[in-house]
Amino acid sequence: MDAYEIAVIPGDGIGPEVVDAALPIVADAAENAGFSFETTRFDWGTERYLDRDEMMPDDGLDRLSGFDSIFLGAVGHPEVPDHVTLHGLLLPIRKGFDQYVCKRPNVLFEGIESPLRGYGAGDVDFVVYRENTEGEYASVGGREHRGFDHETAVQSALFTRRGTERIVRAAFEAAAEREGRLTSITKSNAQAHSMVFWDDVVEDVAAEFPSVEVERLLVDAAAMDLIRRPHEFDVLVASNLFGDILTDVGAQITGSMGLAPSGNVHPGESYPSMFEPVHGSAPDIVGEGVANPLATVLSWSMLFEELGEIGAADALWNAVTDQLADEDAPRTPDIGGTAGTGAVVADLRSRL
Amino acid sequence: MDAYEIAVIPGDGIGPEVVDAALPIVADAAENAGFSFETTRFDWGTERYLDRDEMMPDDGLDRLSGFDSIFLGAVGHPEVPDHVTLHGLLLPIRKGFDQYVCKRPNVLFEGIESPLRGYGAGDVDFVVYRENTEGEYASVGGREHRGFDHETAVQSALFTRRGTERIVRAAFEAAAEREGRLTSITKSNAQAHSMVFWDDVVEDVAAEFPSVEVERLLVDAAAMDLIRRPHEFDVLVASNLFGDILTDVGAQITGSMGLAPSGNVHPGESYPSMFEPVHGSAPDIVGEGVANPLATVLSWSMLFEELGEIGAADALWNAVTDQLADEDAPRTPDIGGTAGTGAVVADLRSRL
Ligand SMILES: CC(C)[C@H](C(=O)O)[C@@H](O)C(=O)O
Ligand SMILES: CC(C)[C@H](C(=O)O)[C@@H](O)C(=O)O
Repeated sequence: MDAYEIAVIPGDGIGPEVVDAALPIVADAAENAGFSFETTRFDWGTERYLDRDEMMPDDGLDRLSGFDSIFLGAVGHPEVPDHVTLHGLLLPIRKGFDQYVCKRPNVLFEGIESPLRGYGAGDVDFVVYRENTEGEYASVGGREHRGFDHETAVQSALFTRRGTERIVRAAFEAAAEREGRLTSITKSNAQAHSMVFWDDVVEDVAAEFPSVEVERLLVDAAAMDLIRRPHEFDVLVASNLFGDILTDVGAQITGSMGLAPSGNVHPGESYPSMFEPVHGSAPDIVGEGVANPLATVLSWSMLFEELGEIGAADALWNAVTDQLADEDAPRTPDIGGTAGTGAVVADLRSRL
Repeated sequence: MDAYEIAVIPGDGIGPEVVDAALPIVADAAENAGFSFETTRFDWGTERYLDRDEMMPDDGLDRLSGFDSIFLGAVGHPEVPDHVTLHGLLLPIRKGFDQYVCKRPNVLFEGIESPLRGYGAGDVDFVVYRENTEGEYASVGGREHRGFDHETAVQSALFTRRGTERIVRAAFEAAAEREGRLTSITKSNAQAHSMVFWDDVVEDVAAEFPSVEVERLLVDAAAMDLIRRPHEFDVLVASNLFGDILTDVGAQITGSMGLAPSGNVHPGESYPSMFEPVHGSAPDIVGEGVANPLATVLSWSMLFEELGEIGAADALWNAVTDQLADEDAPRTPDIGGTAGTGAVVADLRSRL
């Protein structure tokens, strides 16, 4: 019997609420599937920062490196600028463990109303493969002549062949296993250095996947088309920034940020991957006990899938699908209910 | 009686169709308001490029510089990469004439169905002030080690204090004249050089406008919120790229790209401004006579407004509003009708 070691970083805001609430059902799913896991909790985040001026210890990455996987709740705090908290915790893990695939499924579940007219259960089901280590998030740039009239800030997006090829290839592989359709997102008409390069890489990699149909879409058109014709997408591949924007549009049109899971994946054994709900720390509802735990449960499903524990992954995913489809099941306010986090998880456990 | 000189560049695809169709009603509106204008037509665009390897002549900007204003149809052609056509015609005019305010109203007109559930006439009415000369569209960057494993592309976004202050100030001025609410779009949590600078500039300029309420929103959250709560926005101010993406989302949620007008404005006398429908060249419907002329008519309304011809501007805008609200009026297929471009304009003229 395998026993996985999972690092758990509940983080800020509602992070600890959803992480703690979900752990029992996650343990159930593992037990039912005949494996076990142990969690080690790291109380890193903005409280620590306010106390000791660091989001995580200096050797934070070292401490995480031996784990089979990492689960993160949320990072972000109203009292500290996001670029401090994110650059102190979330982004260093994504980059430090070379988690170059940010995988974000967007599914319109039965029982959830899309804000888009005419869209119902099953009509939307695509996954975004977002580059997660470079691009527009590179820490390259600077700011000079501060406060003077000629002050200038430069933010450089950095695209490497290796970094681009590997995310594009991962997306092609996913498309080949799904419906065989890949949409590559660029802004080649305005960003002639980075995005024309991206297009070239897509063309190179496409040659390896003759069965996959490739569409190219400018990011502005893509944002529109996710509203106009979301049912037509299968796999999207996008840079770090474009993926960030489009996955939020995807979460919105599928009914709630509270349902959007994600994986920051380093394929292979060298580093652990990290899974997290997309929603963030949601300071406005902290402590009210109404945070939606479903994105967390779905993110655990993705974590188990990555570990090869497909049975447990499916069990968690199906429990959520099942609950959402049941009109009488408890729901949190963000998806139209009045139930609390605990009641939703309790109901979910009964469905495993 | 003023006689304005307007340069007209019909451009590619449906550009000439909508530009030519709209001219008669535009002339009517001017005549009714007691002024006249003369147009000079420049057949620049991709046909010319295919013929002579240049989108416009070398002295193109010089030739345009004496005009009171410029009207552009569309740029873009299926046979030539966009970064060639756009960098050959549209972008050099925006930059060369320092048209730093890209102004894009997004209005949900009566008679138009939003793809968003529950949104009806008048529920959405905001305007985006998009920076139009620098930022992520700067021609700064390069590509090295072409074809090798260590190939790298860099695309640098450039933000100057002058360039940022002036668009932010223009947006504050607009907000002060509208509902007094300004939303500044950034991505400060991931782009600590450019976007933290942007935030600082917004804070500086905000001090000059104590009556305007300022909200800061990350671009990913903003894309979501334009779907979740579009009725709450008044004026948005955004960088070149973020403005590009969000205005397309805005066009989509207000019912059609065929209704979205825009102005590329250089405030002051030094250079002409340029007005254009947002929709682009739409190669799929070229020559079918069904292109929607309304975005063009609304863009002319913005042009007249900029020239101070408020009467004519209002007359055009109201004719469109009136037509859309009339169930029996002809409409093009993109907004649910079966009429052609000509029939729509003919009907519109009768409403002036
Ligand atoms: C918090 C922020 C840095 C992050 C990102 O932009 O990657 C978030 O928006 C996300 O999508 O995970
Ligand atoms: C065609 C393209 C370069 C342009 C832009 O991105 O500015 C267009 O999308 C627009 O919004 O006017």
